[in-house]
Amino acid sequence: MSNENKRKIIIDCDPGHDDAIAILLAAGNPAIDLVAITTVAGNAEIEKTTQNALKVCEIAGVRDVPIAKGAGQPMVRKRETAADIHGDSGMDGPVLPEPTLNIVEEHAVDLIIRKLLESDGDITLVPVGPLTNIAMAMRREPAILPKIQEIVIMGGGTFGNWTPAAEFNIYVDAEAAAVVFESGVPITMMGLDVTHQALATVEVSDKIASIENPVAKFVSELLVFFRQTYKDVFDFEHPPVHDVCSVAYCIDPTVFNCKKLRVDIETRGDFTYGMTVVDTLGVTHKEPNVNFALGLDHGKFWNMLYQTLGNYSK
Amino acid sequence: MSNENKRKIIIDCDPGHDDAIAILLAAGNPAIDLVAITTVAGNAEIEKTTQNALKVCEIAGVRDVPIAKGAGQPMVRKRETAADIHGDSGMDGPVLPEPTLNIVEEHAVDLIIRKLLESDGDITLVPVGPLTNIAMAMRREPAILPKIQEIVIMGGGTFGNWTPAAEFNIYVDAEAAAVVFESGVPITMMGLDVTHQALATVEVSDKIASIENPVAKFVSELLVFFRQTYKDVFDFEHPPVHDVCSVAYCIDPTVFNCKKLRVDIETRGDFTYGMTVVDTLGVTHKEPNVNFALGLDHGKFWNMLYQTLGNYSK
Amino acid sequence: MSNENKRKIIIDCDPGHDDAIAILLAAGNPAIDLVAITTVAGNAEIEKTTQNALKVCEIAGVRDVPIAKGAGQPMVRKRETAADIHGDSGMDGPVLPEPTLNIVEEHAVDLIIRKLLESDGDITLVPVGPLTNIAMAMRREPAILPKIQEIVIMGGGTFGNWTPAAEFNIYVDAEAAAVVFESGVPITMMGLDVTHQALATVEVSDKIASIENPVAKFVSELLVFFRQTYKDVFDFEHPPVHDVCSVAYCIDPTVFNCKKLRVDIETRGDFTYGMTVVDTLGVTHKEPNVNFALGLDHGKFWNMLYQTLGNYSK
Amino acid sequence: MSNENKRKIIIDCDPGHDDAIAILLAAGNPAIDLVAITTVAGNAEIEKTTQNALKVCEIAGVRDVPIAKGAGQPMVRKRETAADIHGDSGMDGPVLPEPTLNIVEEHAVDLIIRKLLESDGDITLVPVGPLTNIAMAMRREPAILPKIQEIVIMGGGTFGNWTPAAEFNIYVDAEAAAVVFESGVPITMMGLDVTHQALATVEVSDKIASIENPVAKFVSELLVFFRQTYKDVFDFEHPPVHDVCSVAYCIDPTVFNCKKLRVDIETRGDFTYGMTVVDTLGVTHKEPNVNFALGLDHGKFWNMLYQTLGNYSK
Repeated sequence: MSNENKRKIIIDCDPGHDDAIAILLAAGNPAIDLVAITTVAGNAEIEKTTQNALKVCEIAGVRDVPIAKGAGQPMVRKRETAADIHGDSGMDGPVLPEPTLNIVEEHAVDLIIRKLLESDGDITLVPVGPLTNIAMAMRREPAILPKIQEIVIMGGGTFGNWTPAAEFNIYVDAEAAAVVFESGVPITMMGLDVTHQALATVEVSDKIASIENPVAKFVSELLVFFRQTYKDVFDFEHPPVHDVCSVAYCIDPTVFNCKKLRVDIETRGDFTYGMTVVDTLGVTHKEPNVNFALGLDHGKFWNMLYQTLGNYSK
Repeated sequence: MSNENKRKIIIDCDPGHDDAIAILLAAGNPAIDLVAITTVAGNAEIEKTTQNALKVCEIAGVRDVPIAKGAGQPMVRKRETAADIHGDSGMDGPVLPEPTLNIVEEHAVDLIIRKLLESDGDITLVPVGPLTNIAMAMRREPAILPKIQEIVIMGGGTFGNWTPAAEFNIYVDAEAAAVVFESGVPITMMGLDVTHQALATVEVSDKIASIENPVAKFVSELLVFFRQTYKDVFDFEHPPVHDVCSVAYCIDPTVFNCKKLRVDIETRGDFTYGMTVVDTLGVTHKEPNVNFALGLDHGKFWNMLYQTLGNYSK
Repeated sequence: MSNENKRKIIIDCDPGHDDAIAILLAAGNPAIDLVAITTVAGNAEIEKTTQNALKVCEIAGVRDVPIAKGAGQPMVRKRETAADIHGDSGMDGPVLPEPTLNIVEEHAVDLIIRKLLESDGDITLVPVGPLTNIAMAMRREPAILPKIQEIVIMGGGTFGNWTPAAEFNIYVDAEAAAVVFESGVPITMMGLDVTHQALATVEVSDKIASIENPVAKFVSELLVFFRQTYKDVFDFEHPPVHDVCSVAYCIDPTVFNCKKLRVDIETRGDFTYGMTVVDTLGVTHKEPNVNFALGLDHGKFWNMLYQTLGNYSK
Repeated sequence: MSNENKRKIIIDCDPGHDDAIAILLAAGNPAIDLVAITTVAGNAEIEKTTQNALKVCEIAGVRDVPIAKGAGQPMVRKRETAADIHGDSGMDGPVLPEPTLNIVEEHAVDLIIRKLLESDGDITLVPVGPLTNIAMAMRREPAILPKIQEIVIMGGGTFGNWTPAAEFNIYVDAEAAAVVFESGVPITMMGLDVTHQALATVEVSDKIASIENPVAKFVSELLVFFRQTYKDVFDFEHPPVHDVCSVAYCIDPTVFNCKKLRVDIETRGDFTYGMTVVDTLGVTHKEPNVNFALGLDHGKFWNMLYQTLGNYSK
């Protein structure tokens, strides 16, 4: 695929096991032009998620994509992390050497703003962690709003995983989410409704384990750890690879079955802070603001990942 | 069935099409000892729901069950009704004569308190409208709490029908719902998750239409109207007979597949007021307070209704 | 004063030191026709405040006024009491014999409703505790609303004493307060702004101590205890006799300097639950719903109390 | 005064009539080293407040202080302005030529961060508009927190002027205020309690009018307009020069009578959003986080302004 036809994306992430696989899918897939990787606090503290992003790029041989460190805490609330799920490092499991790569000097928010302002309006933002960086960029420089082609969020859902009502990424910074969801920018949302269908079954894990290169081996090890914590914490048989969905959508939207719906962010409830309130039945009669993913084509989804992982050199 | 083995219930309702069918199921089924019917504002204003309850009892020949009028508005919030769904009268469709029956003088809240205090702790409350009367009784006379055998609520769910997050009955008086759900009394909850499975299909409607007595004819007419509004408002092919589920559970709990879960009532959210926040994944680690209905046995459920309607005299 | 010209009041209270003095002012003053005393949980649990009301009537020789027990907990929230201020009994200090008087069988809410419905619209409600009984009566029987001449509330203010924003009576049951303040009934509000001016100085205490009868002696003893807790908890030199203001207003409104203002009740804030939000500057442009007391005539106020206490027999 | 002994301040403002006078007091007073002026949306839109800041510096001959444009809208909420008070331009009244000065390229948030990081911890922030820039700087670069000597805020109070509970600056961006008040940085707060004592009486206006230089003449004209809007909107006889208090405190803290108090920011209430909840009575038992100004020495305050205005050249 010529570079012109590739889809330009910036991944904003907090690796995180599934974040790591999402980066690897983007970096290894010919349909994607990975413009930048920015980091945010979420699954772990900002120093850790940034270090993890560097490690993932190191193992993938990604050397020409700028990696910028972003917000270390939510816009308004106190920080919360997810050590139960991702371990203390934010990406426990595989043992990796210290990366030789470095972050760029620019702050993630500035890099996002600059890349967008310099663009022809053809960059898609792919936030797969809390939405702090994206919201701060929008508030810092409103001129970026018409420059964003689309935002493909991993977050939210009609049910929660961090509280009964809220998914982790949205819960961690619901004020930021409110800014983003009310921005008017086209949003596609990969919520728990679809990501809990993207389960790395034993068959999937075996298939990935059979791919003989260091990147695939790394993914295998990530899945071993992730499988265990999802079993321990949620009693899931197989771990969902949430963040991978957002990148997969950028590569091929037809993998997903989506519907335009109205989604509002709850920032005040006692039991519902951070909930994405999805108007499935259309009772609010408000204009839809989200392209909401309901299901996915398992064959297409996993084959895309297998093929891309197979692209990495042995 | 000897009277001793019958299940004693008080139906607290706001008829309402499905409320009417629920009353008829209770009044005609030999497993139920219908201790009283109390009314509450909800689907329509209190005068209308009370009048409708009288009409239903008149047509069913129910003459020995006390009917008491209750709260005309929620405990704290302003009143809201559901004329879109149930028509202006609250039970539009069938044309019924003015009832000759009368309500008792006692207020619904007093009747509920008295019946419970006089009982051996063997009365089940079956609220299928807003929970105003039940909560006011609990606050008025806390001594009733250990006397309530169980509360079989129609209300709530993991999704809403009045707002994206809230079901109508809970939304109308979320403060009352909070009082009830935090009362410590055993609660079984027939939420939208299960009631949206209790759909009166064409087959069901035809079957009921084939039962030749005035009560079944009345139910048929109710379903014709209800089918139309559910089509118009929610684009449902078939109307769900929500309230019937609560009475059916009292007759035979094995009709339903239930699970003990924690449910909290949201009373402060901007977009989530009146939501029943259901901890499906167990992430709160709070003690379950609700026996939550997930599914129902269609055969058992509808056969129970057919048989009971068949009991009414021609 | 002939009975016809007396002002008919029902005191709804949670004695409480200042409640006790308020009852004594009402019972001993010729301008007041004390129709009933009703009790509510607040300064202490309902059993204690009811017992205290009986004791106060016993010592005052009040034998023909019905005393009815009311709500033991707020409409929606959990109960909170004020043992720091009023001691464990709710009226610590004076040692009183067990009362021989008894409460009537009727619930406070029923008594309030009945008295109002039987009246010519000439009864004033004087709630000097949480507003639970009043709100429950309004919701139970909306027909009382046009029958209430006025409600003279002790509660709220432009600042708080239980939290920085909320006064105790309103804080304990803010939902009830919201019902009352939005009821449309004429409200006069004796908030902290004025009650903190009604300080029982040493001079006042000495003057009361010099009145030679058992009732005045009892008041003296109440003030000794109250002085100490206000010193300990709030570092006040002299205790404010909050509740007395409401009764004093009923006897002679000219004691107080009042202004019509808009007051809304906050039921959702994190730091402001139970606040009476007073629109002093008129910035909301909403219609005033409260006659708000700003100041009082010290001479008139205390002389009224001295004279009334002097009326009691030796 | 040698430059070393001057107090280094950054004024973050939204001119605004009183903002303009505050800038002039800082720029003309020998005790102040004005490090920078940053602008924020508030009294008017960001373009207007920035233009107004340039105009004020132009007339004052301030040519070596960097002026940076900041946030055009609040962190989370929608923008609100105060055209009723300050006119459409944000500084209606005096007619001024277009400024020849320009803003620097750096964003206000970046300039604040850079100046603080380069400093020896001896810079005081003087935000006299909404706290958006300050909060965004704190979130963007937490390393500035220990570098801030003090924050002297104009905002809040124990009562409001924009709503009954909230002062304009805090109301406009309460989320930002929450970030700042919970930051742990030493805060002095010039709330309405003190700024409503800083009234520009006729005597004050006359005195300023008698100072013969263009800057004093400009201030005179500002006061004429401000007097009229405060009369029209709030029925005040004399306008309060709110923002001047913060700068005056930096010049001479002994002008003000202050007390250490706990202040929390309400971001959720229905009627209290943006309130600074001040624990005057100490009932929360929380550690004080604010040096709260209660009163001021009128003589010292106005003389400071007269003298400083007199310093400007004719």
